[in-house]
Amino acid sequence: MSRIDRVVLLIGGVGGAKLAVGLAALLPPERLTIVVNTGDDFEHLGLRISPDLDTVLNNLAGVANPQTGWGLAGDTFHAMETIGKHGGPAWFQLGDRDLGVNLLRTEMLRVGWPLSQVTRHLAATLGVRHPVIPMSDDAMRTWVDTDQGEMAFQEYFVRERWQPVVKRIIFKNAATARPAPGVLSALESADLIIIGPSNPYLSIDPILAVPGIREAMVQSAAFCVAVSPIVGGQALKGPAAKLMSELGIEVSPRGVAVHYDGIVDGIIIDSVDQSQCADLESLGLRAAALDTIMNTLSDKTRLAHDLLSWAKEHK
Amino acid sequence: MSRIDRVVLLIGGVGGAKLAVGLAALLPPERLTIVVNTGDDFEHLGLRISPDLDTVLNNLAGVANPQTGWGLAGDTFHAMETIGKHGGPAWFQLGDRDLGVNLLRTEMLRVGWPLSQVTRHLAATLGVRHPVIPMSDDAMRTWVDTDQGEMAFQEYFVRERWQPVVKRIIFKNAATARPAPGVLSALESADLIIIGPSNPYLSIDPILAVPGIREAMVQSAAFCVAVSPIVGGQALKGPAAKLMSELGIEVSPRGVAVHYDGIVDGIIIDSVDQSQCADLESLGLRAAALDTIMNTLSDKTRLAHDLLSWAKEHK
Repeated sequence: MSRIDRVVLLIGGVGGAKLAVGLAALLPPERLTIVVNTGDDFEHLGLRISPDLDTVLNNLAGVANPQTGWGLAGDTFHAMETIGKHGGPAWFQLGDRDLGVNLLRTEMLRVGWPLSQVTRHLAATLGVRHPVIPMSDDAMRTWVDTDQGEMAFQEYFVRERWQPVVKRIIFKNAATARPAPGVLSALESADLIIIGPSNPYLSIDPILAVPGIREAMVQSAAFCVAVSPIVGGQALKGPAAKLMSELGIEVSPRGVAVHYDGIVDGIIIDSVDQSQCADLESLGLRAAALDTIMNTLSDKTRLAHDLLSWAKEHK
Repeated sequence: MSRIDRVVLLIGGVGGAKLAVGLAALLPPERLTIVVNTGDDFEHLGLRISPDLDTVLNNLAGVANPQTGWGLAGDTFHAMETIGKHGGPAWFQLGDRDLGVNLLRTEMLRVGWPLSQVTRHLAATLGVRHPVIPMSDDAMRTWVDTDQGEMAFQEYFVRERWQPVVKRIIFKNAATARPAPGVLSALESADLIIIGPSNPYLSIDPILAVPGIREAMVQSAAFCVAVSPIVGGQALKGPAAKLMSELGIEVSPRGVAVHYDGIVDGIIIDSVDQSQCADLESLGLRAAALDTIMNTLSDKTRLAHDLLSWAKEHK
């Protein structure tokens, strides 16, 4: 059994944010760094919107809408309703308080703050103490090539409700994007790197596509473990299973493990898939079956605790 | 007594909007054109804000906040409250529904619509049938040179609550601004031009400073009448009296009349100032004292009716 001092968590939005909340309840800020996908960020109505960053911050601050996991609890939607009444583009729902955050982020970026600094500012006023870092301060954007043509991620995900058939995922500006300050040093000094139960293709791959991040993970001495977002042959949430199937990938923890080949040392799967542990171990991975469904705060904390305990035993 | 077929009303925000409501209740859309100051427009938090246009549209549509005269009835302020909580610039209060309108206007301008077209679109969805035209589609902006330095109009008016002492008023880009489509033709075909009870320096002068508008008014055969915003030696609302005094101008209907010398043929003053009619007539103007205080819809309609009747008699 070995000591775990420093943990880095890589995540997208709602699902990953749950594990972030669990880990943040157990680890002090100096022992946990959260690196968040910003491939989903986009410009809409002149606003720079960072859905995953806001979801993670709002969940860590305890102000997220508990029904949806994204957006702010008790928010109103008067601005977007008004845009809709005037025949404007109202397909991306943003609450009024959420809009305030997005107006402010956009203004700060306009005057020259990098996204990571804006995020630190928002985290501080929300009372979030654990470092939350965007994968990059540069605008690397996820697009999908579908049976209905190429479209930006949010057009696919929100406007088209992920119904188009995906043929290929594209990360625009991936060649020139740089990891945000703090990402590489956190990976280098980590002894545990956790890939959250986020969509491997749409939430985690963008992070891994930022030049330097995958390399830092491969070179790191840290134990790296992924939490499978596929449970019982289905995605916990969102398009992961549909997408895997469209891309010809087996919709199973094995499909996830193979996808992370060369990066992960271990995989956490849900208890319902326990029988698959042996197969996963045959791939040369350590595997554990835990209760990965996180609804309540105690679910989140329990998974974080079980994951940390297992990692200490098995790294 | 002569017939009045076509009326043009030049106005700024709250005060002028009241007279617009009164006139719109009496005249069909083809007989009334409303030209609105856009010198107060500004960019804030990435939004293009047109305070006077929105005030006029909202009042004509009957959706304005009845307490303030600006903003929307029953609006919430969650976005701006959120910006304030995060330490952002919250000095310009915009309701959430108002924000929706401003986001949409900004987006339409970004994709290339001229402001006059955006205004027609917003008017149409609000059910406003009378033509409301910005003075210009170009960004001619009002600045004030004060004892605290030069500042944009809204910084002076809202952020500093018009407390700085004004030395000079500046219309930026006045040399190149062009009247919006429809303004000159409306002035040319008008037989009555009304300058509303708006601030002569901050609401009407910007309109007159757009090259071509003053000339069209001087050359027009229309009878031109101004409604004095100075009543009993005070401004009905806002900084008009303070400003006139700072600029060394007599705070009286005479000060207003002298300011509009060469443009107006007549002036409407309030009944409380009736004794000043003779003095105003000595300037070569027609003058009438009417009840100009407009609180209720019936006040607005009554003043519009009395003004139109008087103009028919005296033009």
